[in-house]
Amino acid sequence: MRDLLEAVAAGEVSPAEAEAELAGYATSGAGRFDATRESRSGVPEAILGDGKTPAEVAALAETAVETTGRAIVTRIEAPAVTAVRETVADTAPAATLRWDERARWLVVTTPSFERPSLDATVGVVTAGTSDAVPAGEAAMIVGEMGAAVTRVDDVGVASMARTIDAVDRLRDQDVLIVAAGREGALPTVVAGLVDVPVIGLPVSTGYGHGGNGEAALSGMLQSCTALSVVNVDAGFTAGVQAGLIARQIDATR
Amino acid sequence: MRDLLEAVAAGEVSPAEAEAELAGYATSGAGRFDATRESRSGVPEAILGDGKTPAEVAALAETAVETTGRAIVTRIEAPAVTAVRETVADTAPAATLRWDERARWLVVTTPSFERPSLDATVGVVTAGTSDAVPAGEAAMIVGEMGAAVTRVDDVGVASMARTIDAVDRLRDQDVLIVAAGREGALPTVVAGLVDVPVIGLPVSTGYGHGGNGEAALSGMLQSCTALSVVNVDAGFTAGVQAGLIARQIDATR
Amino acid sequence: MRDLLEAVAAGEVSPAEAEAELAGYATSGAGRFDATRESRSGVPEAILGDGKTPAEVAALAETAVETTGRAIVTRIEAPAVTAVRETVADTAPAATLRWDERARWLVVTTPSFERPSLDATVGVVTAGTSDAVPAGEAAMIVGEMGAAVTRVDDVGVASMARTIDAVDRLRDQDVLIVAAGREGALPTVVAGLVDVPVIGLPVSTGYGHGGNGEAALSGMLQSCTALSVVNVDAGFTAGVQAGLIARQIDATR
Amino acid sequence: MRDLLEAVAAGEVSPAEAEAELAGYATSGAGRFDATRESRSGVPEAILGDGKTPAEVAALAETAVETTGRAIVTRIEAPAVTAVRETVADTAPAATLRWDERARWLVVTTPSFERPSLDATVGVVTAGTSDAVPAGEAAMIVGEMGAAVTRVDDVGVASMARTIDAVDRLRDQDVLIVAAGREGALPTVVAGLVDVPVIGLPVSTGYGHGGNGEAALSGMLQSCTALSVVNVDAGFTAGVQAGLIARQIDATR
Amino acid sequence: MRDLLEAVAAGEVSPAEAEAELAGYATSGAGRFDATRESRSGVPEAILGDGKTPAEVAALAETAVETTGRAIVTRIEAPAVTAVRETVADTAPAATLRWDERARWLVVTTPSFERPSLDATVGVVTAGTSDAVPAGEAAMIVGEMGAAVTRVDDVGVASMARTIDAVDRLRDQDVLIVAAGREGALPTVVAGLVDVPVIGLPVSTGYGHGGNGEAALSGMLQSCTALSVVNVDAGFTAGVQAGLIARQIDATR
Amino acid sequence: MRDLLEAVAAGEVSPAEAEAELAGYATSGAGRFDATRESRSGVPEAILGDGKTPAEVAALAETAVETTGRAIVTRIEAPAVTAVRETVADTAPAATLRWDERARWLVVTTPSFERPSLDATVGVVTAGTSDAVPAGEAAMIVGEMGAAVTRVDDVGVASMARTIDAVDRLRDQDVLIVAAGREGALPTVVAGLVDVPVIGLPVSTGYGHGGNGEAALSGMLQSCTALSVVNVDAGFTAGVQAGLIARQIDATR
Amino acid sequence: MRDLLEAVAAGEVSPAEAEAELAGYATSGAGRFDATRESRSGVPEAILGDGKTPAEVAALAETAVETTGRAIVTRIEAPAVTAVRETVADTAPAATLRWDERARWLVVTTPSFERPSLDATVGVVTAGTSDAVPAGEAAMIVGEMGAAVTRVDDVGVASMARTIDAVDRLRDQDVLIVAAGREGALPTVVAGLVDVPVIGLPVSTGYGHGGNGEAALSGMLQSCTALSVVNVDAGFTAGVQAGLIARQIDATR
Amino acid sequence: MRDLLEAVAAGEVSPAEAEAELAGYATSGAGRFDATRESRSGVPEAILGDGKTPAEVAALAETAVETTGRAIVTRIEAPAVTAVRETVADTAPAATLRWDERARWLVVTTPSFERPSLDATVGVVTAGTSDAVPAGEAAMIVGEMGAAVTRVDDVGVASMARTIDAVDRLRDQDVLIVAAGREGALPTVVAGLVDVPVIGLPVSTGYGHGGNGEAALSGMLQSCTALSVVNVDAGFTAGVQAGLIARQIDATR
Repeated sequence: MRDLLEAVAAGEVSPAEAEAELAGYATSGAGRFDATRESRSGVPEAILGDGKTPAEVAALAETAVETTGRAIVTRIEAPAVTAVRETVADTAPAATLRWDERARWLVVTTPSFERPSLDATVGVVTAGTSDAVPAGEAAMIVGEMGAAVTRVDDVGVASMARTIDAVDRLRDQDVLIVAAGREGALPTVVAGLVDVPVIGLPVSTGYGHGGNGEAALSGMLQSCTALSVVNVDAGFTAGVQAGLIARQIDATR
Repeated sequence: MRDLLEAVAAGEVSPAEAEAELAGYATSGAGRFDATRESRSGVPEAILGDGKTPAEVAALAETAVETTGRAIVTRIEAPAVTAVRETVADTAPAATLRWDERARWLVVTTPSFERPSLDATVGVVTAGTSDAVPAGEAAMIVGEMGAAVTRVDDVGVASMARTIDAVDRLRDQDVLIVAAGREGALPTVVAGLVDVPVIGLPVSTGYGHGGNGEAALSGMLQSCTALSVVNVDAGFTAGVQAGLIARQIDATR
Repeated sequence: MRDLLEAVAAGEVSPAEAEAELAGYATSGAGRFDATRESRSGVPEAILGDGKTPAEVAALAETAVETTGRAIVTRIEAPAVTAVRETVADTAPAATLRWDERARWLVVTTPSFERPSLDATVGVVTAGTSDAVPAGEAAMIVGEMGAAVTRVDDVGVASMARTIDAVDRLRDQDVLIVAAGREGALPTVVAGLVDVPVIGLPVSTGYGHGGNGEAALSGMLQSCTALSVVNVDAGFTAGVQAGLIARQIDATR
Repeated sequence: MRDLLEAVAAGEVSPAEAEAELAGYATSGAGRFDATRESRSGVPEAILGDGKTPAEVAALAETAVETTGRAIVTRIEAPAVTAVRETVADTAPAATLRWDERARWLVVTTPSFERPSLDATVGVVTAGTSDAVPAGEAAMIVGEMGAAVTRVDDVGVASMARTIDAVDRLRDQDVLIVAAGREGALPTVVAGLVDVPVIGLPVSTGYGHGGNGEAALSGMLQSCTALSVVNVDAGFTAGVQAGLIARQIDATR
Repeated sequence: MRDLLEAVAAGEVSPAEAEAELAGYATSGAGRFDATRESRSGVPEAILGDGKTPAEVAALAETAVETTGRAIVTRIEAPAVTAVRETVADTAPAATLRWDERARWLVVTTPSFERPSLDATVGVVTAGTSDAVPAGEAAMIVGEMGAAVTRVDDVGVASMARTIDAVDRLRDQDVLIVAAGREGALPTVVAGLVDVPVIGLPVSTGYGHGGNGEAALSGMLQSCTALSVVNVDAGFTAGVQAGLIARQIDATR
Repeated sequence: MRDLLEAVAAGEVSPAEAEAELAGYATSGAGRFDATRESRSGVPEAILGDGKTPAEVAALAETAVETTGRAIVTRIEAPAVTAVRETVADTAPAATLRWDERARWLVVTTPSFERPSLDATVGVVTAGTSDAVPAGEAAMIVGEMGAAVTRVDDVGVASMARTIDAVDRLRDQDVLIVAAGREGALPTVVAGLVDVPVIGLPVSTGYGHGGNGEAALSGMLQSCTALSVVNVDAGFTAGVQAGLIARQIDATR
Repeated sequence: MRDLLEAVAAGEVSPAEAEAELAGYATSGAGRFDATRESRSGVPEAILGDGKTPAEVAALAETAVETTGRAIVTRIEAPAVTAVRETVADTAPAATLRWDERARWLVVTTPSFERPSLDATVGVVTAGTSDAVPAGEAAMIVGEMGAAVTRVDDVGVASMARTIDAVDRLRDQDVLIVAAGREGALPTVVAGLVDVPVIGLPVSTGYGHGGNGEAALSGMLQSCTALSVVNVDAGFTAGVQAGLIARQIDATR
Repeated sequence: MRDLLEAVAAGEVSPAEAEAELAGYATSGAGRFDATRESRSGVPEAILGDGKTPAEVAALAETAVETTGRAIVTRIEAPAVTAVRETVADTAPAATLRWDERARWLVVTTPSFERPSLDATVGVVTAGTSDAVPAGEAAMIVGEMGAAVTRVDDVGVASMARTIDAVDRLRDQDVLIVAAGREGALPTVVAGLVDVPVIGLPVSTGYGHGGNGEAALSGMLQSCTALSVVNVDAGFTAGVQAGLIARQIDATR
């Protein structure tokens, strides 16, 4: 610890990095950033943009970049993207930003950041166009955790031929995330056709009774095939769960 | 009306029959029997056994037999069956009883009763064994309304091969009733494969969140194919609706 | 297939038409269009405007017009109508657009498109003014499927005289769609007065407990007459179901 | 007060009566009996049998008889009836008991008890046989409060002719209680036909979604006519409310 | 009828008035106006502003004024008020408008309109300031039906002294409407203190679990005193119900 | 630790006591008993009888007596009481058992057990007889934690005089637990009358909408006075919370 | 009283103060202000900004300052703050305003106002940044009631090390308010680690099933440790409850 | 196929085995048994005992043993166990039965059956004793799929020391199933401490609001750590999902 503190004193290590190393988290004006989450639980700490001001998001992103070389923000709106961009321009001008406006995520990485690389492939499957946002969020975090991602889109059961056509690709994956709204039948049908773990991701489409993804969620929980499920629109959670499975598979390859 | 009353006076027509003809309903000790329901709305009046004593069921069944030549009872338990049997033995000894203990229906018909006959076929489809009770109730009333019934059982989507194997038989029907519990995905899948009207019949299987048929019901209401739906376990309603469609088809053949 | 591909090569058939013929669906930048849905399931494929950008709606509508000669869009807002209008002006300048701003549907047809024509009539019934939107959506798709439509408006049970006055017209239809909000009693009353299939269409009016159409939906599911039901505001689904019944009736005339 | 206490001392007034007169309630081993409820709020205090042991019911009934000359018990089962009967045989042998086993109420009155008599009539209306229990409870308490009761049974809207046939009788009442289960449409239809206050009484019939009276309750709350409503199966509350209206009408006659 | 038609021909009676007299309703471009509702059911027909365009509201209000001399609109917003004002300026320039912007109702009356006058008083009671809107709607319709209105405001149970202070005024009314949000305890407490009918009016205040008036509604339905209840914020319904009771009381005075 | 282990070896300390001292919990065949819960969190560990077999309850009770000198069991049925009695007769024959059959709790104490004694009084208040069970459970655990208990029963708001009569006694307590079912208004009214903390305890009485204590719970959560609340029928939790407050008060006296 | 009225006549006491002293509440144009709430129930009367116009808030705040020397407003928006500021500038220019824009509360105090001071400390604990608003509201009212406040922020259970690090500070408090959204596990974990009363404050974060704080609320009600709970986002209620406990502790110190 | 049919003719292969091989399922009197489910989807077909008669269970078990050498029955009651035992005694006398009466599963295996063996370990974790049944079901099916099972029991968060003590064992597993009822906090806490996939298994303990496992389910879906979840009490589903992950891990070892 003495070495570390001397490095701080010498300006070689920032106080935030030192705090992260010593305490496991770094404190910014906008709250604590759990800098050791990835090493402890295999999950990169991500910043949830919802309910935070642009300034708060930017402060947390800055801390994230400083301590881990990467910031992942989900459910981010344009003003917060601008705030992060400006903060990063100041403090980490060499960093690159990737922003998916529709799926509402932002990833900032410094040139020295090394993304993990796992020898495992996660299929991210959608029933239709309206499932793209949570599926996109899931695919992003799977990628950030280092697994390969295969997208299989638009294979909803209303025209079963599309589903059947995709069977071979579905069977080639190590683990599947299947996103569906409305009645959410696709994960059930897929899980009956493959022999890998399927994670059901209900999507908040639909209106009237059972709308907002509630029918899809309860249908997946009741599935007559064996699914595990995440909350409605919880693409991040589905992606992390698939990423953790991919880590286990990779560890043994 | 004078003729009718004279016939009553002469003992040729029972008071119940006369009342039914004049008022549209016949009064028994256990309530009114809507004797003209079938001629008015195409639906045979049925007696719901649930929540009635055996004596009440028997009284209503007797009135039904007396005024229409047939009594249909749904959700009937063994003691009420016995009560009906005894009443009928007295008042209509030539009548025959058909009782499905599992699907819990009883039909009594006099020898002179002529069941309608429709030139139309209704497919009654189940996902699994546990859908048998409401499906059986539906099939019974379809038959009593005069349509042909084709049973297609055990074709749930957990093993899609069973569903695909049945496609030709499904496409041969004029109208389909598809019963499913748990996540209730089968009617959605079937409606994507055929070009006839599909009535979804949710079944009260399943446990936990969305159990008691609620997930199946909301999934069918949210279906990305076009289903009409009846309430959970409402086999009678599904059967009547299919029977009314069959009547329309028959009328034009 | 060779012929088809040669026609594509010769520019006589567009790639989208060829893909639709070969695979059953056509791929646009905004997702797949299920071009064979109508021939397979009797239901014209429609584009749901909700949750899509104007550009996506326009791209899908263009594909629909190109492959089937018609585009049907539901729940469409003005900007998307403009986008479709512009796209169509480019790619199918001879096409005509019909737009119902209140019921929020748009239908585009090319001059060569031949709408089916069924020998069957569907009654579309409303309890009051506020049921007009889903009823209008239902009537549109019934018409596009080729059946005749009879509108019977403003016959809610609060003043029963209006309902009774309409009985003869109601009895003249082959199948009825009955739209009602609040307590949703009208379909129950109508089904007791006619002998044709009645499809209940709950409408999202009402406030407080049971609002947003939930009371109407649960009342129709519990109806003491035999209704089949669609989800709240699901005019499209009700119309398709009535259209499929009309097809069956027509087939036998 | 001195007079009262001297009367107690002289054994002319029981301690319970004296406590009731002084404090407004009488204490028994099983809880307090609100002996002045009727004079204060116009509502006879009643004992709810549910959730009490036979001994508790009997103790409270004894106190009621002692202080007011009458005991009204609702939702009572046979063992508690026996316990009351035995207690009354001891302490008020001249009292008479009326017990409606099906509607589950018991009324005990001493010979000297004078039931109030109101110059007003309450119609108690049922849609069908299964509404008899809460309707019976309502009719009992209306009668105990002194109003005349007219029963109009079995006029549910599934066969509207029955409803229409009853219009004149319905219009003759000063206030109406209308009991209905399933979709609960009858009170809405009745309120559109009469110009007196209608109290909707939802009944816990029906199964599946909206069962247990929930659809009937929400439908009555959403009614497009003007109903006031009580809870599911709350026949006692509906009857008291109608009785209070009858008292107001009587007071002015 | 001949006389009426000749009067129409002579321009002495408008077609709308004639239609109303003959059919019971008058047809405008925006739907039917139930012109005989008041004579049939004692309830003045009112126009619900929610979900109608200003033009539709104005058309219906014009028909109402023309056929009954009065238009009552509830849940009306400023633009619709303007539209009514302009229409009325054209077609009934002598009419007067009363608009309560907060309680969102508008009443238009022609000089010749005679409001009924009932010899009965309705107390309209609120727990706090936030109950003013539905209470105001209730008071308006009570007044339009001809009963006297006594307002008793701000007597919620959080400081019971305010409630107790109001007891004498509460006991002086013939019928009470008691509006309360949050936990909705006031109607229960009031009904324990008076001997007249109490109608509970739940108000959509409160947040979190049981918010939007759901806790108030369920509490009133469960009340240990005898309340009848209307839906959340249904001030109009509560007022009509109280008005109908007032009519019954008046009829006998 | 050596001493402890030697004491075990010498038979002076049982293995269970030693484990409890060393690990904080003692292991029985039926699960772990958290023997240090009271010293750590001030709450005596209690055994929930629901969902355990009589043998399991007895095994856990034996461990509790052995390690802490007392066993507290809630929601216990007669067979489990018998099992505990037999086990205790063997292993701690000098222990005494107190069993409240109605409130369903059992407390076993050895002669050497010293119950804590707090200088603070907890009022346990009920609206009516049916609140006795959870109130009794609350009073028991308050007593076991060492506070004095004052019972104030049968003061529900339906007859407000009873509530007002009790105000002085209510104001004398240091903290109040107020149990109420149905609409659950009593805690709100009490909290407006006193200046001590009030814990609302909803009771699972009532039927129909909001039954099973749901209306009472949501009403208490929405209370316009400041209550904290526990779950429906959670007398144990309410009692513990009051006991912890009493401990804080006592600590400072 | 004569003295008081003479003081009013002499202009030494305002009418509002006099009314407050005599009746317990003061009437403003915007409703009554319960000026004796604090002396009666220990809770300072606060003005809920939600659902009131800026003018109403300002009028009530003016009355509060006039009668008690302080105004507390919760859930206040900027326009109402401006209105209060202007009103206070006129009527109490020496007063100071404290406004927390994020936690949305405003406190106005006159120079002569003496805040109570309690010898007790309340810990206000948050799981994460998004719990700041209700926690801030709770801390404000605790402070206004006179207790010391310790903030312990950002100790959610996702990284348990943060929770464990805080144990000593948690154990130092006399009572704890623990705010948490999403699954709301933190109060359960904290209550297992301390021996003081813990009040769970669920926060309306989270999306999908169980969102809006419903999962957190039901989890806290089901907690396997002993929590009392307030409604979702009810920081004010939690703070008052903690303040009342602090008053009890202080009274005995 | 010829060979197979000749083997059937020769009595070397049973008709059921032959059907299973040819069609993928075997037909018994009680429905179809999906004999190729394991080879197709990696999940052994299991028979759900709930809702089937003992005879039906026995018939399906016989078919299962005949075609796959093993029968797995979940949610089985004693009479069905007896029926299976008798059937097996006849048709496969060498088979062995393992029955867990509490966790309600039964496994029958013939001597020649070879259970798969996976090089992966699944931790099955419980919060308390009442989680044993679904956890036991999960552990059984994990074992039948060939993975090693480590049980970690009684580590609920109410006494966090128990949880912390178990961290090393938890971190040693390849995948974790964590069962918890009440507020269901354990999976959230565990997932924050380990870096392997955690499947949350909510258990139907608890009473009042959020009881029957609903609070646990919604809490796990809202978890601030990354869980995937199965339905309440769905031990079988959790076990299969963990087993599928174990298969993926094993495949790469």
